[in-house]
Amino acid sequence: MFTILPIKGYLDQIDGFYCDGISAGLKSNGKKDLGFIYSDTLCDVEAVFTKNKFQAAPLRHYQMYDKDFQTNFILINSKNANALTGQKGIDDINEIFSSLKFDITNPIMSSTGVIANPIPKEKIIAGANTFDLSSKNAESLAEAIMTTDAYPKTCMYEVKLEDGSSFKIGAVSKGAGMINPNLATMLCFICTDASIPKEDMKELLEVNSHTTFNAISVDGDTSTNDTVLLLANKKSKAYDKEAFKEVLRLVMHDMAMLMVADGEGAKKAVAFEVINAANDEEAQTAAKALSNSLLVKTALYGEDPNFGRIASTIGASQIQCDETKLVISYNDVIVYNKGEILLDDICEAKAVQVLKNSEYKVLCDLGIGEGKFTAYGCDLGYEYIKINADYRT
Amino acid sequence: MFTILPIKGYLDQIDGFYCDGISAGLKSNGKKDLGFIYSDTLCDVEAVFTKNKFQAAPLRHYQMYDKDFQTNFILINSKNANALTGQKGIDDINEIFSSLKFDITNPIMSSTGVIANPIPKEKIIAGANTFDLSSKNAESLAEAIMTTDAYPKTCMYEVKLEDGSSFKIGAVSKGAGMINPNLATMLCFICTDASIPKEDMKELLEVNSHTTFNAISVDGDTSTNDTVLLLANKKSKAYDKEAFKEVLRLVMHDMAMLMVADGEGAKKAVAFEVINAANDEEAQTAAKALSNSLLVKTALYGEDPNFGRIASTIGASQIQCDETKLVISYNDVIVYNKGEILLDDICEAKAVQVLKNSEYKVLCDLGIGEGKFTAYGCDLGYEYIKINADYRT
Repeated sequence: MFTILPIKGYLDQIDGFYCDGISAGLKSNGKKDLGFIYSDTLCDVEAVFTKNKFQAAPLRHYQMYDKDFQTNFILINSKNANALTGQKGIDDINEIFSSLKFDITNPIMSSTGVIANPIPKEKIIAGANTFDLSSKNAESLAEAIMTTDAYPKTCMYEVKLEDGSSFKIGAVSKGAGMINPNLATMLCFICTDASIPKEDMKELLEVNSHTTFNAISVDGDTSTNDTVLLLANKKSKAYDKEAFKEVLRLVMHDMAMLMVADGEGAKKAVAFEVINAANDEEAQTAAKALSNSLLVKTALYGEDPNFGRIASTIGASQIQCDETKLVISYNDVIVYNKGEILLDDICEAKAVQVLKNSEYKVLCDLGIGEGKFTAYGCDLGYEYIKINADYRT
Repeated sequence: MFTILPIKGYLDQIDGFYCDGISAGLKSNGKKDLGFIYSDTLCDVEAVFTKNKFQAAPLRHYQMYDKDFQTNFILINSKNANALTGQKGIDDINEIFSSLKFDITNPIMSSTGVIANPIPKEKIIAGANTFDLSSKNAESLAEAIMTTDAYPKTCMYEVKLEDGSSFKIGAVSKGAGMINPNLATMLCFICTDASIPKEDMKELLEVNSHTTFNAISVDGDTSTNDTVLLLANKKSKAYDKEAFKEVLRLVMHDMAMLMVADGEGAKKAVAFEVINAANDEEAQTAAKALSNSLLVKTALYGEDPNFGRIASTIGASQIQCDETKLVISYNDVIVYNKGEILLDDICEAKAVQVLKNSEYKVLCDLGIGEGKFTAYGCDLGYEYIKINADYRT
């Protein structure tokens, strides 16, 4: 048995981790744009990256280290993704690290922002050299890594094990647009003092990605920079695999849900739950199709229970389905039941009430097998267009 | 040799075809919503339908006829798709046809509009019984089948063969939103007096769908009702397979391009040309991903040459690609050349000029093999949201 307790505060509450964020002049509005995570001992590290074939320079730089490398420093900037920058992008990262005044081991860089611009390395070097590595200011770090995010994204948990020992885990992340199920477009940094073996780090990151970051979508676009990093300094000496798996799932779920809720301009965070599909894969195909359909997303925005679009999207996803077995509901309001349209005026009024909520569930029971998957998405309205029509300026 | 001449006018210029459109009260604003195509002799007919698994009742009704059936009547309504209506939807079609006063053979119904509403059969029967089957008023028919279309869509051609004989072909179609590469969400009715053999009708419809209707996208959503119908009354006694293949391609291309240009709220019709991919399939995957990407579409709307989103979308599509071989241009303005970012101030000004056009090309040379495909799409702006947020009301 174990107990998981949410803790107020940030990942800098974990013994041995330090962080901060500053303004280095990358954002023209003077907002924070450069941050770091520093550990006073070397950490084991594992990562999962975007499946985009054009991986950004920081991802390729990371993958040049030996498989079991340890690190004590992550440098993170917003506003420039250092993507599509070729060998120069990697050379720039090496030049930045070799120009820093402080002593760090196997430093990692992580970037987010506009693709296909050379990274402004002079500003980054100048800014990073003002860092105070003894800072514990995760709030500033969370701000510094934001791009179109409306708010910073963090969480913290403490896990108490049966033998009285305990460990902590906390995360900071960014992500609002360009969010799609191949990790979602995002950066997420998770720190822990759990004494987790290296092999468990990789396994548990991957297993939990499937139902968290890989289950969310804002706009169906997969970025060049998606990264989830897990750092373990093992200072607590405490560990239990089941407990860690569960708390890591919580951390990743929290971060994923905060991203969906912050979908650019989104007002609704919606769970698309597909059950009784022929198998889990087909449930996933249908659930992700729903979370990505523009017609579904605009109907949610309009608070219109136009469930025909939901059925049509399932049919278009090419999975096994049958309209005489399909049941569709908004939370517990059933609007279509195995061939019968239930959406009369009374039912519609109830459905509209559900759609007025900021969080709800669209449930599709395919009535065919036992497959299930829940994808998470959001509505899409005018604000998304406004944010993305001229993002670079 | 043969000559293809565009003709001003509508498909009712073809000998033996009659059509009209009226207001039957399905649209609350009194606009035309019910139309027909009538032939004074029986026609061979072929169709291609949506790949959506939830095919609407009219499609299932059609498929109940024998493979080689002939028809002389198509009834078309807008505002209600008769989709997700089960056996009742088919029963309603049979009831409508058995209630019509005039003598017709193997009538076909075609519907577009809101999914999952019972079809208002009384209004349709009452309206259809006022039809004058001797009308030649294709303009009214084109209006009657519109839903969110901004304008009616028609074309007409005459083909002169080397032996002095000639035939005509004309089309009327609808489609603006819910447009996606599985035929695009649309209805298209093509009439000809060419003496085309039945087997050629199916073959040429399918081969031309690939590069026309299946190459366009407005919003990535595939409807339940997509239909392309080809009717041949063979009155001209003239036919040449190569000529017919080419003119049918022209007709279908015209109709497809009119739909893209009428993408709900769209101001730009954009060709996404992918060349030198590993093979044609990969080119198609990348081209369609580009035409469907929200981030690409919003950048086009913002007239922002943010080509990083184009590269990122190609990378995310999981095809074989290499940033040191990739070339991206807007018309002839190259912005990225094999790892080199060319978008300085001068180049950007030129690219913005291209993006201000209402039609242009985004060219992606992958530099890997010889595969190529062109997909057609449009920008996505506020108007799309406005049209789709509360479509039913």
